[in-house]
Amino acid sequence: MPMVKMVEYGEASPEVRAVYDDIMATRKTDWVNNFWKVLASHPPTLKRIWENVKQVMAPGTLDPLVKEMIYVAVSVTNGCEYCIHSHTAAARAKGLTDAQLAELLAVVGLANDTNRLANGYAIPVDPQFRRDPA
Amino acid sequence: MPMVKMVEYGEASPEVRAVYDDIMATRKTDWVNNFWKVLASHPPTLKRIWENVKQVMAPGTLDPLVKEMIYVAVSVTNGCEYCIHSHTAAARAKGLTDAQLAELLAVVGLANDTNRLANGYAIPVDPQFRRDPA
Amino acid sequence: MPMVKMVEYGEASPEVRAVYDDIMATRKTDWVNNFWKVLASHPPTLKRIWENVKQVMAPGTLDPLVKEMIYVAVSVTNGCEYCIHSHTAAARAKGLTDAQLAELLAVVGLANDTNRLANGYAIPVDPQFRRDPA
Amino acid sequence: MPMVKMVEYGEASPEVRAVYDDIMATRKTDWVNNFWKVLASHPPTLKRIWENVKQVMAPGTLDPLVKEMIYVAVSVTNGCEYCIHSHTAAARAKGLTDAQLAELLAVVGLANDTNRLANGYAIPVDPQFRRDPA
Amino acid sequence: MPMVKMVEYGEASPEVRAVYDDIMATRKTDWVNNFWKVLASHPPTLKRIWENVKQVMAPGTLDPLVKEMIYVAVSVTNGCEYCIHSHTAAARAKGLTDAQLAELLAVVGLANDTNRLANGYAIPVDPQFRRDPA
Amino acid sequence: MPMVKMVEYGEASPEVRAVYDDIMATRKTDWVNNFWKVLASHPPTLKRIWENVKQVMAPGTLDPLVKEMIYVAVSVTNGCEYCIHSHTAAARAKGLTDAQLAELLAVVGLANDTNRLANGYAIPVDPQFRRDPA
Repeated sequence: MPMVKMVEYGEASPEVRAVYDDIMATRKTDWVNNFWKVLASHPPTLKRIWENVKQVMAPGTLDPLVKEMIYVAVSVTNGCEYCIHSHTAAARAKGLTDAQLAELLAVVGLANDTNRLANGYAIPVDPQFRRDPA
Repeated sequence: MPMVKMVEYGEASPEVRAVYDDIMATRKTDWVNNFWKVLASHPPTLKRIWENVKQVMAPGTLDPLVKEMIYVAVSVTNGCEYCIHSHTAAARAKGLTDAQLAELLAVVGLANDTNRLANGYAIPVDPQFRRDPA
Repeated sequence: MPMVKMVEYGEASPEVRAVYDDIMATRKTDWVNNFWKVLASHPPTLKRIWENVKQVMAPGTLDPLVKEMIYVAVSVTNGCEYCIHSHTAAARAKGLTDAQLAELLAVVGLANDTNRLANGYAIPVDPQFRRDPA
Repeated sequence: MPMVKMVEYGEASPEVRAVYDDIMATRKTDWVNNFWKVLASHPPTLKRIWENVKQVMAPGTLDPLVKEMIYVAVSVTNGCEYCIHSHTAAARAKGLTDAQLAELLAVVGLANDTNRLANGYAIPVDPQFRRDPA
Repeated sequence: MPMVKMVEYGEASPEVRAVYDDIMATRKTDWVNNFWKVLASHPPTLKRIWENVKQVMAPGTLDPLVKEMIYVAVSVTNGCEYCIHSHTAAARAKGLTDAQLAELLAVVGLANDTNRLANGYAIPVDPQFRRDPA
Repeated sequence: MPMVKMVEYGEASPEVRAVYDDIMATRKTDWVNNFWKVLASHPPTLKRIWENVKQVMAPGTLDPLVKEMIYVAVSVTNGCEYCIHSHTAAARAKGLTDAQLAELLAVVGLANDTNRLANGYAIPVDPQFRRDPA
């Protein structure tokens, strides 16, 4: 049970409904997931977050599946159950296979391991890794 | 100053030197970064971690640049300064542009944001996202 | 099911009961929540943590609702389900509205985002932000 | 040294300069901190993040100092050095005293402690904390 | 429901079965827990992670119960529900008492608290703590 | 430079000096580290945190070196530079060798890895790990 009432399409204000319509049109789906129904309890947040997601996740110099994998990597590192499920499903809808998921999680796990070895040993950054910004 | 003495190539045991040689051969470089010189203070860890990195970061169903980006995403989420520098440098060596880095960090940032909205509102996972494993 | 047996009031030792009584008197409630019933399995921890909470959460230069919001902000960032529920309920009991919760979570989300942009780009701290302690 | 070149006002494009001008006007300052100079390397991110900060941090049902304290609480929990310095400075500019900072950090610390006790003991959420959304 | 199908012993390939047999022989148990059944969906990961666990958790200069307690401390800090349950159970099987668990969690909680005080106040590391590596 | 002025022994109030004296007597040292000098800017926090540390880190059912190792494990997982240095130094003062540090960090790293595999695959907790509290 979420902290606030979820707003269903049928009871949404025109402002909220416009965002729901844009979500479904952009994603070519006919339903809106709980994340947005909860944010709709505060329309400025709904609109703001959707605009961020739409801009950031659009195809750019990185392709959408890569972006979804990065989203999964962060969500797994943070242990966010909702986001792990929603973004793994989104990645699968964009073509992620079980073998690719396994490789993605293997990298995520190993990075979490070596992050701690680097911190725990207080390893100084090699000067070669510090880049002179152009 | 790291927690333990770093092992330079010239003073390394044959066991450590074999790992250093493999690192340089695999990466086609002529130097070994501080991470490995520190792990070399405990040779079983040096060997184990290198074997993990070699296996996990090898080309597979995901390409090496995607793997490096995932590594950066985790390191940034955890705030590991050493790993942010070393893996961003590695990603650049594999072709990452400034524009791609910007898109990568934009996704990482946004995922960290929405992870908290999902947690904070205690949003229930949509049944559509729960997959019946084949 | 928690890791240890929860201690109900009726079966509590005088030492534990004294803490329970103080919790209920301080909070003007007639029940004790699971957090304390679990800590009661180790009375020195029960007493120590309650004394910390009582001192830290008391009205001071910050008002109690602000303190509860800070508690929620931390719990959401860490993804602690129990604490998100218990401290959001406590904040509501102190007057937090749905609109205030939405603003609180918006700040928490955004801070989690920009924290990663700052880390990921390795942004140096401006000298203007470093304060000469009086 | 940051990952990308910082964009100074004098060399900024009109698009970037417009954001810088808005930051200084909104904050009534005559300088722009490094965070924005780094984001300016990717103008769409600069504009997007500034619009988020402007909307989220504006006075609303929570006052700006409370919002800055929440920002500090998150940044401290995540250990983001840049953000700790910049948002503590911002909070001080809005009136935060040393005594208030001490109380803020005491709550942040204690919340981080009890979050782990709740997780470690796997404490079930009390039904009283689960709210029936209106 | 996990993200991938769990592999039961009866349907496992010889490669997977060999790992399962080694897990049970090493642990002197007659069953394999879900963690391994899930990893078995990607045999190279199953084998790699098991080899890591076997090497790292073996008796060495630290005894196995101490290693399990460290595992619990990390899992609690990260809020990983599966790992908290599995490693607390493993520690109990190695002799951990309720009183020891209480002391372990008290340290974990307090460390999480003082970590934030150190970060929040930006406390400089005392030169006495920086060791000249031999 | 810390966020507040550090309080040196010579300028300390009797209240603060009493805590400093107790720290030095308990630890059998003749100096006080920066952590306490910073907390001394808010004497109730200084006194409260010291009492917590003194109680939690005292010998009990776990020995003090094990407690220090747990403290290091948490600090490394959180990436707290100050705490990593101070508690690794404390552990060394209690006898921790380089080989033990290597094993400790190997466990910390691996736990951080498998925590993410468990989260990422959404592995259900085995009923065998859920304990019926006595």
